[in-house]
Amino acid sequence: MKNFISVKDVSDINALVAKALSYKSNSFADRNLGADKKIGLLFLNPSLRTRLSTQVAAKNLGLEAIIFNVDKEGWALEFEEGAIMSGTTVEHVKDAAPILGQYFDILCIRAFPTLNNKAEDYSELVMQSFIQFAGVPIVSLESATLHPLQSLTDIITIKESMNNSPLGDWGKPKIVLTWAPHIKPLPQCVANSFAQWINAWGEADFVITHPEDYELDEQFTKGAIITHNQNEALKDANFIYVKNWSTFTDYGRIYCNDPSWMLTPEKLIHTNNAKVMHCLPVRRNVELSDEILDGPNSLVTTQAGNRVWAAQAVLSEILNGK
Amino acid sequence: MKNFISVKDVSDINALVAKALSYKSNSFADRNLGADKKIGLLFLNPSLRTRLSTQVAAKNLGLEAIIFNVDKEGWALEFEEGAIMSGTTVEHVKDAAPILGQYFDILCIRAFPTLNNKAEDYSELVMQSFIQFAGVPIVSLESATLHPLQSLTDIITIKESMNNSPLGDWGKPKIVLTWAPHIKPLPQCVANSFAQWINAWGEADFVITHPEDYELDEQFTKGAIITHNQNEALKDANFIYVKNWSTFTDYGRIYCNDPSWMLTPEKLIHTNNAKVMHCLPVRRNVELSDEILDGPNSLVTTQAGNRVWAAQAVLSEILNGK
Amino acid sequence: MKNFISVKDVSDINALVAKALSYKSNSFADRNLGADKKIGLLFLNPSLRTRLSTQVAAKNLGLEAIIFNVDKEGWALEFEEGAIMSGTTVEHVKDAAPILGQYFDILCIRAFPTLNNKAEDYSELVMQSFIQFAGVPIVSLESATLHPLQSLTDIITIKESMNNSPLGDWGKPKIVLTWAPHIKPLPQCVANSFAQWINAWGEADFVITHPEDYELDEQFTKGAIITHNQNEALKDANFIYVKNWSTFTDYGRIYCNDPSWMLTPEKLIHTNNAKVMHCLPVRRNVELSDEILDGPNSLVTTQAGNRVWAAQAVLSEILNGK
Repeated sequence: MKNFISVKDVSDINALVAKALSYKSNSFADRNLGADKKIGLLFLNPSLRTRLSTQVAAKNLGLEAIIFNVDKEGWALEFEEGAIMSGTTVEHVKDAAPILGQYFDILCIRAFPTLNNKAEDYSELVMQSFIQFAGVPIVSLESATLHPLQSLTDIITIKESMNNSPLGDWGKPKIVLTWAPHIKPLPQCVANSFAQWINAWGEADFVITHPEDYELDEQFTKGAIITHNQNEALKDANFIYVKNWSTFTDYGRIYCNDPSWMLTPEKLIHTNNAKVMHCLPVRRNVELSDEILDGPNSLVTTQAGNRVWAAQAVLSEILNGK
Repeated sequence: MKNFISVKDVSDINALVAKALSYKSNSFADRNLGADKKIGLLFLNPSLRTRLSTQVAAKNLGLEAIIFNVDKEGWALEFEEGAIMSGTTVEHVKDAAPILGQYFDILCIRAFPTLNNKAEDYSELVMQSFIQFAGVPIVSLESATLHPLQSLTDIITIKESMNNSPLGDWGKPKIVLTWAPHIKPLPQCVANSFAQWINAWGEADFVITHPEDYELDEQFTKGAIITHNQNEALKDANFIYVKNWSTFTDYGRIYCNDPSWMLTPEKLIHTNNAKVMHCLPVRRNVELSDEILDGPNSLVTTQAGNRVWAAQAVLSEILNGK
Repeated sequence: MKNFISVKDVSDINALVAKALSYKSNSFADRNLGADKKIGLLFLNPSLRTRLSTQVAAKNLGLEAIIFNVDKEGWALEFEEGAIMSGTTVEHVKDAAPILGQYFDILCIRAFPTLNNKAEDYSELVMQSFIQFAGVPIVSLESATLHPLQSLTDIITIKESMNNSPLGDWGKPKIVLTWAPHIKPLPQCVANSFAQWINAWGEADFVITHPEDYELDEQFTKGAIITHNQNEALKDANFIYVKNWSTFTDYGRIYCNDPSWMLTPEKLIHTNNAKVMHCLPVRRNVELSDEILDGPNSLVTTQAGNRVWAAQAVLSEILNGK
């Protein structure tokens, strides 16, 4: 693996999942793989799970992880080609990226979308600039449109749940991605990425449900069944992925914020005793009810715990240069 | 030791002090005790000594310390059970704590009081929530009402000073905790905690002096002699602990801020050549005069240096699971 | 080397440059030199290259580097002797420095000038206070008036460029430091320091050019030819160092900000195919044109990469106590 920006960087999803689960049972199996190497973690935005799980994963591989909060410990970067830099940005990515590429063997970057400039966000300007100028492997810690470490974790968690189930042979699980209310306009990243990965994985019946006007970009959802009827979508589901996102077409807005879209225990009745997932942080009793999050169907803690093994598998593949 | 939240977590204060002093003379005696383990240091508030000394202590034990500035690198946590999270808090401790407990073997947390909500502060909501939900040992880096790493350091410093004294047998030293002026309403933590530890230790004559209206919570001070007459309190003192705190009864306020309570060299005359202590940071010439801080009776630098050995002893006990 | 605050701390510049270049070809040659030692990196201001390159250098020497963003993770320090601390500063350097000196074997500090108080800035109050009170070696990560790690990097880069040149024997290179426009009043540090080091090195013909009113402090420039005619200065130059600074005499101001001082390809015509240097971050198309920065004459990426080896050489000398 050279970079890890989207599912397209992965040649075999099931093999990567298997690698992650092997690290979960033997964290230090490759404890010297990253010896004498340094990984830079660049944050242009806040992070809890991604930040900490990637540091833990790096350490398990013998990598030295160095954190840099770009906006708080450094300054604002410029990404526009040919910019006359007489404004608020202090350093161009064309200058910063190749230097960071000299200091580090791998660069990991978190850069949220603007939610104002759809063309810029969907061109993945930040990630693509680092890929172009850094000269070392780039790992997304969540980008303008995708969150691949999260999606890998999600499939790890689904597979693990299926493996641990007493039900025996599953055939294809039914996986439902459902929109949920929120108080702020959020990126489409997690939803886009989950859709992209589940479609690429191809081992599930995949349904996406959301209110009108919340259509996601077809490049990611193509292959899924899409419906505005949440109850119909949830019927017989094995896994429900709950997530809010803002509108894509009329970009970055909140249209409907109907609280009846919040997942509650009653909605689980017609599912196949569905497990419930969320990438966290979650607004309790807005996106998901306490009853769900504190109940036996929730996988959210396991899912977040698996972030370590997802990151470790990805860093391992990059170190192996495969 | 399972957690380290207050003196009640310590079975033998003198043994813990001895362990700390043994690390002071041989820092790397247990250099592999924490091998392959990770300790998360979570800061909801600023910190200098606690932050850095705990990192140094962790490193001396072979522990990997990972810092997380919760409010600056992450976001605001919610602690209220059943909260409808449509406000400014982004993640509930019920979700964050068990995940952090998966990433780390030990969690250390700094969380100052609100100074607005006495009931919440004195219930130690933050620490108790982490104990309830994290599933790993919790170490206080200063909580709403207590600062046990500081108090352990204080007793280490007192014992060390007594051991090094040419005076020979001390009998019981006279220790005085005196209130000092300040420009801001400060927590009661350091004073509460010092009182709790000195009382639990039981090897001193312990006097607390402060202006009227600055009574501390009796659960911590019980056993000490309390007086509003500073000069009387200081008479024959061997150790003077200087600290400001805001009012407890009418919570979090500044009543009297009489500058005559500042400790100056004249006040040492009727002491037993008393050593002067302060947890730092100290407002020079407000809480304590330059003459005291720069003079031969000050222990503040030694005391702050001992923070490393206090933290190392506590982490060691927790790693040993004793 | 005891401290590293200015070129005066260096007994042999060429030997230090040679050491740095030897680390560039063999990064881990002294991988255990810093074993069991800790280095504290204190930032009172933002930093990218200095922060990250020093961390990488420390790691290469087996040193444990611990970062402390003084203003963001701690609080404001007081430096005035005798201050009555009833204002915004929370801790005096007289208290903080000796404690940090107990926690760390080496302290590295970044502290920009005020640009308001010339006497305070040019007395190097912060650095001198830490030297006076910390009791351990102090390394400047850029101070009020100087940036010695940058200047060492600059000479490393010049020497390396000369060594790699196919031109054979250089004799004395002509090095030109030229002022450039900027939108903000910047410190004189990098320019002062570059002048001080090139003069001390003594192996170049050294010219400084800037608009009227931008004279630098003579204590640093003495020995250089100084002219207000940029074109004349650049004639036959081998190396051009581009940097903005604010006025020194009428302190910290922007007088002329003439855009014609920006370095562009046309200005290279009458040079000796000069290499172009800048400490970064650079305001593209304000200080330097895209054509220069993206062209074959730019050394800026190499120069920034060499920050690692400069820091490693300095830390190594300090660890060796030479």
